[in-house]
Amino acid sequence: MNANASDIPGYTYGTSTVAASSATLDDLQRLKISAGFTEEDARYLRTAGVVLEDQVERIVNHWRAGIIAGIPHLARHSRNLDGSANPDYLARSNRRFQQWILDTCLRPYDQDWLNYQREIALRHTSVKKNQTDHADSTPFVPYSDIAAFLAVLNDTIKPYLEAKGDNESDVAHMHNAWCKSMQIQIALWAKPYMEIESAGTEW
Amino acid sequence: MNANASDIPGYTYGTSTVAASSATLDDLQRLKISAGFTEEDARYLRTAGVVLEDQVERIVNHWRAGIIAGIPHLARHSRNLDGSANPDYLARSNRRFQQWILDTCLRPYDQDWLNYQREIALRHTSVKKNQTDHADSTPFVPYSDIAAFLAVLNDTIKPYLEAKGDNESDVAHMHNAWCKSMQIQIALWAKPYMEIESAGTEW
Repeated sequence: MNANASDIPGYTYGTSTVAASSATLDDLQRLKISAGFTEEDARYLRTAGVVLEDQVERIVNHWRAGIIAGIPHLARHSRNLDGSANPDYLARSNRRFQQWILDTCLRPYDQDWLNYQREIALRHTSVKKNQTDHADSTPFVPYSDIAAFLAVLNDTIKPYLEAKGDNESDVAHMHNAWCKSMQIQIALWAKPYMEIESAGTEW
Repeated sequence: MNANASDIPGYTYGTSTVAASSATLDDLQRLKISAGFTEEDARYLRTAGVVLEDQVERIVNHWRAGIIAGIPHLARHSRNLDGSANPDYLARSNRRFQQWILDTCLRPYDQDWLNYQREIALRHTSVKKNQTDHADSTPFVPYSDIAAFLAVLNDTIKPYLEAKGDNESDVAHMHNAWCKSMQIQIALWAKPYMEIESAGTEW
């Protein structure tokens, strides 16, 4: 995917440690149709991936240091339980956050992708949060905050999509494809949140 | 809200028949912050409401007849269980769908709004679907399809926001405010879905 993906701590995409998703490829097909996600969108996402590839560090820094750090109820999920900073946890999860941008754009949406959607969601729930990085942080990220924060991701990705001088129409297509993928992903992430025993409490 | 809102069948916004939301005003405030929703967004939504007010019938017709009707796994939720059309159910829910656009733009996001968010979500789950209109349709709309379909709502609302000749910057602000509200609403709708006993099965 990219040359360094295998060096990313805790990044297990496509490996045997990732369990099968309970959402099926038929579910994914249904959600693509519900979101209006077509083959053209897949192509525009690949273009977006090329546009974003050398910007992912800056983008994630924008999201984390520029936005999340200023929102205490979001920032705490990357900090220790006592509120102190945990630079190692943050750095590791930032690397995966960067790779997630690339995976969103450049990976085929196949069984591996679907499995990793579930893995990502679980790592935000009490089932798996903190485990990957042996962190002592909040037990889960509320689903509702992730769903709401997508509005920020969708809005703030725009200048990075524009950054390589693509024409306005292509940028709009890339952005629309990105937004469709976000809705498919938040739909997929809902499933693990709904299936865990403490579903209502991790909303 | 609008002169005819009280004539809309099954529309119970602000009435004593709507139970209190289990999401609190503090939750709503948290989600607004997570989505980056500000007072400026609330103002742009009100402008959007004025722009959209005389277009809601056309917009909902676009969504229902133009898009949903062509997607069998979505269309069936407004049809009888045997697959036959139920024009009365469709017409009634379309009137409420139209009003929901106006409520999104023009209502204050207060306790009544929050309560009605829960009511809307429940009417898509097995707890309340079909009851309002005594319909014999599917028992629930999967949460995941609603989350995915937001991408379509967000994309297709654009020309209607542009229709009154507002300048490009104002239209972009209106659209961004709309998208933020959609993410807050899909976050709120997740709560009833997570709280019902059959949570996992109505994903």
